[in-house]
Amino acid sequence: MTVADAKSRIGVTGLAVMGANLARNIARRGTPVAVHNRTAARTREFMEAYGSEGAFTAAETVEEFVAALERPRRIIVMVKAGAPVDAVIEELAPLLDEGDIIIDAGNSHFPDTKRRTEECAARGLRFMGVGVSGGEEGALLGPSIMPGGDPAAYAEVEEVFTSIAAQVDGTPCCVHVGPDGAGHYVKMVHNGIEYADIQLIAEAYDLLTHVAGLDAPAIGKIFEEWNSGDLESFLIEITAEVLQKTDARTGRPLVDVILDEAEQKGTGRWTAIDALDLGVPLTGITEAVFARTLSSLKSERKAAAGTLGGPVPGAGEDRADLVEDIRQALYASKVVAYAQGFAQMRAASAANDWNLDLGAMATIWRGGCIIRAQFLNRIRDAYAEHGDVENLLMVPYFTDAVAEAQDAWRRVVITATQQGVAIPAFASSLSYYDGYRRERGPANLIQGLRDFFGAHTYRRTDTEGVYHTRWAQDGTEVRTDA
Amino acid sequence: MTVADAKSRIGVTGLAVMGANLARNIARRGTPVAVHNRTAARTREFMEAYGSEGAFTAAETVEEFVAALERPRRIIVMVKAGAPVDAVIEELAPLLDEGDIIIDAGNSHFPDTKRRTEECAARGLRFMGVGVSGGEEGALLGPSIMPGGDPAAYAEVEEVFTSIAAQVDGTPCCVHVGPDGAGHYVKMVHNGIEYADIQLIAEAYDLLTHVAGLDAPAIGKIFEEWNSGDLESFLIEITAEVLQKTDARTGRPLVDVILDEAEQKGTGRWTAIDALDLGVPLTGITEAVFARTLSSLKSERKAAAGTLGGPVPGAGEDRADLVEDIRQALYASKVVAYAQGFAQMRAASAANDWNLDLGAMATIWRGGCIIRAQFLNRIRDAYAEHGDVENLLMVPYFTDAVAEAQDAWRRVVITATQQGVAIPAFASSLSYYDGYRRERGPANLIQGLRDFFGAHTYRRTDTEGVYHTRWAQDGTEVRTDA
Repeated sequence: MTVADAKSRIGVTGLAVMGANLARNIARRGTPVAVHNRTAARTREFMEAYGSEGAFTAAETVEEFVAALERPRRIIVMVKAGAPVDAVIEELAPLLDEGDIIIDAGNSHFPDTKRRTEECAARGLRFMGVGVSGGEEGALLGPSIMPGGDPAAYAEVEEVFTSIAAQVDGTPCCVHVGPDGAGHYVKMVHNGIEYADIQLIAEAYDLLTHVAGLDAPAIGKIFEEWNSGDLESFLIEITAEVLQKTDARTGRPLVDVILDEAEQKGTGRWTAIDALDLGVPLTGITEAVFARTLSSLKSERKAAAGTLGGPVPGAGEDRADLVEDIRQALYASKVVAYAQGFAQMRAASAANDWNLDLGAMATIWRGGCIIRAQFLNRIRDAYAEHGDVENLLMVPYFTDAVAEAQDAWRRVVITATQQGVAIPAFASSLSYYDGYRRERGPANLIQGLRDFFGAHTYRRTDTEGVYHTRWAQDGTEVRTDA
Repeated sequence: MTVADAKSRIGVTGLAVMGANLARNIARRGTPVAVHNRTAARTREFMEAYGSEGAFTAAETVEEFVAALERPRRIIVMVKAGAPVDAVIEELAPLLDEGDIIIDAGNSHFPDTKRRTEECAARGLRFMGVGVSGGEEGALLGPSIMPGGDPAAYAEVEEVFTSIAAQVDGTPCCVHVGPDGAGHYVKMVHNGIEYADIQLIAEAYDLLTHVAGLDAPAIGKIFEEWNSGDLESFLIEITAEVLQKTDARTGRPLVDVILDEAEQKGTGRWTAIDALDLGVPLTGITEAVFARTLSSLKSERKAAAGTLGGPVPGAGEDRADLVEDIRQALYASKVVAYAQGFAQMRAASAANDWNLDLGAMATIWRGGCIIRAQFLNRIRDAYAEHGDVENLLMVPYFTDAVAEAQDAWRRVVITATQQGVAIPAFASSLSYYDGYRRERGPANLIQGLRDFFGAHTYRRTDTEGVYHTRWAQDGTEVRTDA
């Protein structure tokens, strides 16, 4: 293998599609890159296919790879999340010098990133956990990059990262997120929001199919139109494409022959679990995750369809404005899903001392990643104008947007309920909205019941203190905190 | 302290209310009990207050405590979940002999119980994780007991446990659940179901208050009536009591002066997290957990109430049958919540090789615990008649019950949606129902999108195999698994 005389600025180990495309992206921007893979055959294949695209140095062994890098060494690890990341660190660490930087650009779970940051620090190494979104194409042409870790380490790679990131209005979709696990955390929430976005699209598609009675290509056209308004986004755009795709084998719309069992890789689940741990209501994303698990129970659903009664959709809904209502329901539910996701990041930032700049997160998601959308400009503006808001629903732009959409939103929930179409994300987002705007909800009864059966105590609205009623004894109230 | 000549059959360490009441319950049934507490003062107080209730042996030190027990020693540990349990085990273990039995009767998280079972086994000790439900009163008068662990160890304590458990129709609410963490797992799901039950009651109360326009005592009367029908249960009964309770300080209904911020101890959250881990849709319990976290955002809700627009409930709903509709919505949603919880236990049983007898779980929850209800007889019957059903909704009794209730259920969801009352558990249960009874849902589009942006592949309805469409290239479909 070639080892060039000049050292490479950065290295990439792990040359599956994502790692290969990242390496190519870096080289194409004029930065010399050393490349390495556990099986050297893949490195050779890489060089044959892409070696002419830039200044690559191919390394057959880890020793060669490390030797090919200028110092401090900057090593991007792009391997499967979990044990393989630890294995690569174990292999690299003995060969590295103090201050060298290991960059995990895979989809690692943020607690692992926190642990690895500490473990590397104990060995004198700097570790970065970097979220990279945009799939294979994004990695090659410009992803959204969410780097977490020591700011001084980030300064060493900032130039490379910002050069390869997607650019929106001249701004790179890459900014230092925060210390240790912050980058992977934000990437996780990004993916969670993606689950909610996709579920909302699926519910709109379901209603347009079964209530409005439209076929896939016609619905594709509608999404195409929607993509020129408030909903303009990558996901709406590709929904239009997917729905209008004809299956070569059958001549039918492709979606009509795709099996309706959604799979998942786990980041949505991590996001929901984290929200439960933090105590942040995150109903949109969580319902989206559960909707996928329900979809995977295909054989159960098949049996249930013949047994469980209910309305058959399509009966009697013929409103001309139904399509527009569904568009508004989608938009309002999307606002709620993002408001919840950003509230979760805010809570995580406080819990972990990350000092996240939420407006910057919206900014770097505007391009390169799966949830890229015009909409994120509105979120960026909201934080720019209003600072650290507790909930995006309270920012006038979104307050007004939802107020305007909500009659349509309610009509859609009502129609779906009448016609028996499942709308877990539409409905739970609306319940969140209605719960959030209630100064006094029904949890007083919950507290009364908890005090009755478990002596869990309650607070009062009219005075300080913690109280318990002696329900089973003399029925008197006693103060328990004084 | 007294150490009687005869050895005690069983010991209890940890004499806070739950431990003290369990010890008293055991002694009152005629079984000699040794009692111990970390601070001996509490043991002395216990003996002064309750020493005459039965054959107690009070031990001042752990050594005395262990010496007071017949062999194999049976030691119930009733301390705060978490590190204190490990601390007690560490203290006891060196004093015990092979085959002695340590019984953790607190609210431990089941993975901890699995770990402790292994750790104790490595020391020659037998460990049991036992769920005990029913609060303080249940512990004293007859709890529902969910013992997990080695069957031979259970045989050593079965007589004591069944003697102190609640009895329903002559059957004790105690049965061996399964190995290692099974007992604490089932207790966790019990608590999760309790969250859903309570949330559904809170939503019914909210609608009766703000849509039907009734005051707390009137609603209390309605719950009293409901308690003589399908809904008959401890929680409905105490809801009636709590709602009819007058606050001595203000003369108003007590619930009207209780603060509407619900607290939680974590078992509902554990249940939701476990469902996400297992991939079981558990929307009712999870929405209930999130509703509590939303309720705790009181200051945010207060600010939002003045800002976020929407309908004001109470405007224009004057249906005579509204109360009956709400009752039916509550019942149908409850069926769904239980169906989900039992499906979760079924999945956990398979994942952990626990071989859970789900009908037996329903049987031991009929008395002693917080969710005790007539309803559980129906679940017991369902498993007795139909064996290992995948989902309780598929058992004719529940299929018919929901079919009958569903028009009312839909009307309630529609009314709440029109009037802006949050109904996260009613609505998500209905969406689950409508999703579950759909042979083909909209997840085909989700798979199409995932394949477009991430090359995640899809399956087809008309042929075997895993496929990818080369969306960004020539648009052809390739098989990826052959």
